[in-house]
Amino acid sequence: MRTHRLHCPALALTSKVEYCVPFYDTDAMGIVHHANYVRYLELARVRFLREHDEPYQRYIEQGYNFVVTRIDVQLRRATRFDEVLTVRCWLERVRAVSLSFGYHIRCGEELTALGWTEHGTIDRLGKLVRIPEAKREHLLTLVPPLR
Amino acid sequence: MRTHRLHCPALALTSKVEYCVPFYDTDAMGIVHHANYVRYLELARVRFLREHDEPYQRYIEQGYNFVVTRIDVQLRRATRFDEVLTVRCWLERVRAVSLSFGYHIRCGEELTALGWTEHGTIDRLGKLVRIPEAKREHLLTLVPPLR
Amino acid sequence: MRTHRLHCPALALTSKVEYCVPFYDTDAMGIVHHANYVRYLELARVRFLREHDEPYQRYIEQGYNFVVTRIDVQLRRATRFDEVLTVRCWLERVRAVSLSFGYHIRCGEELTALGWTEHGTIDRLGKLVRIPEAKREHLLTLVPPLR
Amino acid sequence: MRTHRLHCPALALTSKVEYCVPFYDTDAMGIVHHANYVRYLELARVRFLREHDEPYQRYIEQGYNFVVTRIDVQLRRATRFDEVLTVRCWLERVRAVSLSFGYHIRCGEELTALGWTEHGTIDRLGKLVRIPEAKREHLLTLVPPLR
Repeated sequence: MRTHRLHCPALALTSKVEYCVPFYDTDAMGIVHHANYVRYLELARVRFLREHDEPYQRYIEQGYNFVVTRIDVQLRRATRFDEVLTVRCWLERVRAVSLSFGYHIRCGEELTALGWTEHGTIDRLGKLVRIPEAKREHLLTLVPPLR
Repeated sequence: MRTHRLHCPALALTSKVEYCVPFYDTDAMGIVHHANYVRYLELARVRFLREHDEPYQRYIEQGYNFVVTRIDVQLRRATRFDEVLTVRCWLERVRAVSLSFGYHIRCGEELTALGWTEHGTIDRLGKLVRIPEAKREHLLTLVPPLR
Repeated sequence: MRTHRLHCPALALTSKVEYCVPFYDTDAMGIVHHANYVRYLELARVRFLREHDEPYQRYIEQGYNFVVTRIDVQLRRATRFDEVLTVRCWLERVRAVSLSFGYHIRCGEELTALGWTEHGTIDRLGKLVRIPEAKREHLLTLVPPLR
Repeated sequence: MRTHRLHCPALALTSKVEYCVPFYDTDAMGIVHHANYVRYLELARVRFLREHDEPYQRYIEQGYNFVVTRIDVQLRRATRFDEVLTVRCWLERVRAVSLSFGYHIRCGEELTALGWTEHGTIDRLGKLVRIPEAKREHLLTLVPPLR
């Protein structure tokens, strides 16, 4: 599998979501069940599109969806009921038919998790399609420069 | 991030779980929400421990838990309500304080997803601890040889 | 609110699903999080339709959906990771635009939960519609007689 | 089953939570999956305890938990991705070993759902126990008078 960076580039445009861990996200180990972090990434990604691009609903209305093709999450620290997490998202890469996002999850000062997701652009029939050129050009302006 | 193989080694001991996609696992795209695949991996991992090692409950009773430290899933094909998935799991690696598992998810003949998870062994206080030596030796016998 | 019986009528046609509690359904109290029982009811309801009526997918293909309008669950006993539950469902009532189902959840011999759900029939636009007459007549044959 | 009111008493002390529907709460009908409403009630109940009594964590630290014994939800209107819900909670009744809460969920001006939950007080061993007298007296002051 391909390697990819999981550090927030210094110059990245980011969006952030605060999330107070609900009791229903915990498991019998007393900590947040790991599958939930994948959901937290979605919250921040949806926020990023709204703040820097356009609401995800607009993509849907125009006949596009982003289907997840890869999920990669590193968990550094368990989190518990009622802790407040800050999930930060940035756009990592834009290609012809795919996008990828990077994420940090912090609890106070501590880094809790690093995430990376990849998405294919599909049409109403579920076929992979190219991101429209004008849209793609805008998205490219949101990608931070390589260090 | 480190690369890792995501192919089921030919000689791997595996366990498999059949899972019929419930309606509640779908999302407004009409497909299984991607975070659920992380749960499906857990079903197969729990089965693997029961079949080839010992039930996860026994680890808990002895004061051990496996905390997830890394999740990596490649999604190749969307799946839908009422489709039957076969999730296959094998032990990929055993180290002093960590384990990793590999996974295939198939829908009929088609490969739906590849997964890989890494787990740290912790004690009742949540501290990382070494896997007991006898246990570790048994686990090592379950790891398929490198190709 | 209206009262309703929550006892499985002796003569009811039922369907049952076996469900082994996955770790991800537990919460920090060490037991199944209560919201999950609502999902378990769905598993048995979907099975009931398949066994005694027709697969839910067929309703969807014909432009119908059953939207949940009421959920009522009594929990008698907590359940834990790896316990095997038996969820039994029967059709409780059929009206012009709505249906209701009753449920038992058992863990071994013990009654774990009683459930009752009510559903409105909607069309592709989300409008409440009458259940087609022939369909309704068949469904009525599935309802157990009043005691 | 017993009937119970599901109207917010005019004089009730309430707490409210705003919740923007995440994509992962939707299902293939394009609406919030009904089991999720049970989770939304929990968010408001936890907030109520924090604002008018004490954080739920304090109950846990003192060896108490509230186990859910009954869930009753009426759904009046479907809700969708990105809609903002307001969940309002009040204390409905306090008995020797149990509590019940009432809930309203609104989307804008529209009433989306009414809820009612009942909880038993348990100790660290999972046994039902009486709510400590001083605590019970305080909780009783939070219950709105009967109309």
